[in-house]
Amino acid sequence: MEIKKTQHSKLDTIDPNNSPFGVNISDHMLICEYENGQWGKPVIMPYGGMNYSPALMAIHYGQAIFEGMKAYKDKNNDVFLFRPEKNFERFNKSAERLAMPPITKEIFLEGLYALIDLDRDWVPTKEGSSLYIRPTMFASEEMFSARISNKYTFAIMTSPANSYYDKPLKIKIENHYTRAVSGGVGFTKCAGNYGASFYPTLLANQQGFDQIIWTDSQEHKYFEESGTMNVMVRIGDIIYTPPVSNTILNGVTRDSLINVARHNKIEVREERISVDSIVNAYQQGTLKEIFGCGTAVVVNRYSHVGYNDNIMELPTLKDEESYAVLLKKQLVGIQTNELDDPFGWRIKI
Amino acid sequence: MEIKKTQHSKLDTIDPNNSPFGVNISDHMLICEYENGQWGKPVIMPYGGMNYSPALMAIHYGQAIFEGMKAYKDKNNDVFLFRPEKNFERFNKSAERLAMPPITKEIFLEGLYALIDLDRDWVPTKEGSSLYIRPTMFASEEMFSARISNKYTFAIMTSPANSYYDKPLKIKIENHYTRAVSGGVGFTKCAGNYGASFYPTLLANQQGFDQIIWTDSQEHKYFEESGTMNVMVRIGDIIYTPPVSNTILNGVTRDSLINVARHNKIEVREERISVDSIVNAYQQGTLKEIFGCGTAVVVNRYSHVGYNDNIMELPTLKDEESYAVLLKKQLVGIQTNELDDPFGWRIKI
Repeated sequence: MEIKKTQHSKLDTIDPNNSPFGVNISDHMLICEYENGQWGKPVIMPYGGMNYSPALMAIHYGQAIFEGMKAYKDKNNDVFLFRPEKNFERFNKSAERLAMPPITKEIFLEGLYALIDLDRDWVPTKEGSSLYIRPTMFASEEMFSARISNKYTFAIMTSPANSYYDKPLKIKIENHYTRAVSGGVGFTKCAGNYGASFYPTLLANQQGFDQIIWTDSQEHKYFEESGTMNVMVRIGDIIYTPPVSNTILNGVTRDSLINVARHNKIEVREERISVDSIVNAYQQGTLKEIFGCGTAVVVNRYSHVGYNDNIMELPTLKDEESYAVLLKKQLVGIQTNELDDPFGWRIKI
Repeated sequence: MEIKKTQHSKLDTIDPNNSPFGVNISDHMLICEYENGQWGKPVIMPYGGMNYSPALMAIHYGQAIFEGMKAYKDKNNDVFLFRPEKNFERFNKSAERLAMPPITKEIFLEGLYALIDLDRDWVPTKEGSSLYIRPTMFASEEMFSARISNKYTFAIMTSPANSYYDKPLKIKIENHYTRAVSGGVGFTKCAGNYGASFYPTLLANQQGFDQIIWTDSQEHKYFEESGTMNVMVRIGDIIYTPPVSNTILNGVTRDSLINVARHNKIEVREERISVDSIVNAYQQGTLKEIFGCGTAVVVNRYSHVGYNDNIMELPTLKDEESYAVLLKKQLVGIQTNELDDPFGWRIKI
């Protein structure tokens, strides 16, 4: 791997501990180009422009995927990654569905480790902060024929990130727009899934909601995801979450929270959640919590759930009563080396 | 509008009459940037790289749309566009669904006219050739937060194009993968729709088919589109085509062919086409033609249609018996100023 270091670190002007999510991109990026059926040599270089023209095929035909992961610093300034192999595996599942070449484990993981090591001063230390990591792959041929690209760029960029959201959200159960359909690309982290969700979310915002709970495409009767996160529901003392499928992302945070919950002897059921069952539980007073989970936000609690013209107001639990708070605390504790890691998830860089 | 002309025309080395579809991009492009809630001044400049980084939001979140249109040269070397207002209108419909700002008619159409006028030497003269025109708009902010971009680039690029396909295709009726779903973005020309279709098409290719006929997401029982085109079916002497919907693109070629057909007293019915009705017509010997239609290819006939493990072989009509051939000839005749234009579709540049 070649490393070209920047001569002008932006750390003179940017404070990683005071950096809103995703805005300030760290000094270096990893770039690896695919051409003639093979990946070239990965290069770490100063982050910046790449001379792509507006004919870049990723822009026209959407062969573009990404991952989201984080690096954390503990009190000794040691830097840790969290389950990066899960992101590597999912990245290649996305690639396959988008007819893109798989990246090698060597380029993805060793590139990642080298990049984080080089830019370790960008990992913030403030509580709740982390270095957000964005691996991406996109079609980089420049032409107009609607076909599979012959060239791709794999890139890893990073950005210091404060907490993503900070208050319980009002969320709307979507019964018109659709995020994903069986036989589609809903289970991948491809670019098209996100742009397609912005307009329905904007409409929800105009109705006073912060986010959407996506439902199935056939009947809009079953929970799928919430915003860009997986969704979990606590009824009584059981957590329910929809099983992963070809319309639901196999979230690393989702899987980790399930494991942490079970480690705490909390029952988790991976089953379809009908809107009717939520309304019933609400009416019976057993609906205790609904929360989203994902890498960027970790866990986000919901306070109000809109459905048709009704609003269900969820109970305001004390922190010590909330599974969302408990699970988040334990997961972040593992990620930041504050707590033991019985699962072997942490990787020291 | 500012115009910066190239000092080095590529026409020294590229022959527009000998240029495969979409590969060679003409000397100039139009660029207009959106920021702070408004479009800036459009600039025509030499086609080339734009210094985008791999953090370009279009690559990550798929806010990216395009149009496809063509310019034609007649025997007097006059240059014509075909119904450009239709593309302008559809472009803004795509933009709205992708939560992108509308482009003004002035920037889109006057920019288009000025660009085609400047690069008129790029319009090929060979029969069946044209200058393919690619307007596009994409999110051009560079950051990682999964939200609506605040910056956009509108671009128009062009490329000389020989005929896209040249032989009748073998096509497969898709009954597993899905292109579009109600409440989704199927009716738009957004990037994500295309990348999502490549893998299912690749699988069809591996089974010996050239393209896919997409069916509805609920039951896979009704025709929707074929490949990246609208689809038309001739049973007896009636043409059937699915009505446009929120899963089917409102094709300019589709609409034009319907008008040309009706002008020829051919009956056209815009109704849902079930796979069962196709199989029945095939068994009764009344299934005469199936063809795709779109700007890039105009009309493409299908010779074989695969469904489950069966292949339906369509009759080999003589050119003078084929509606597909008749309609294509008349449409291209109008586009290239070989025939009268009773519809007022042609615009001279």
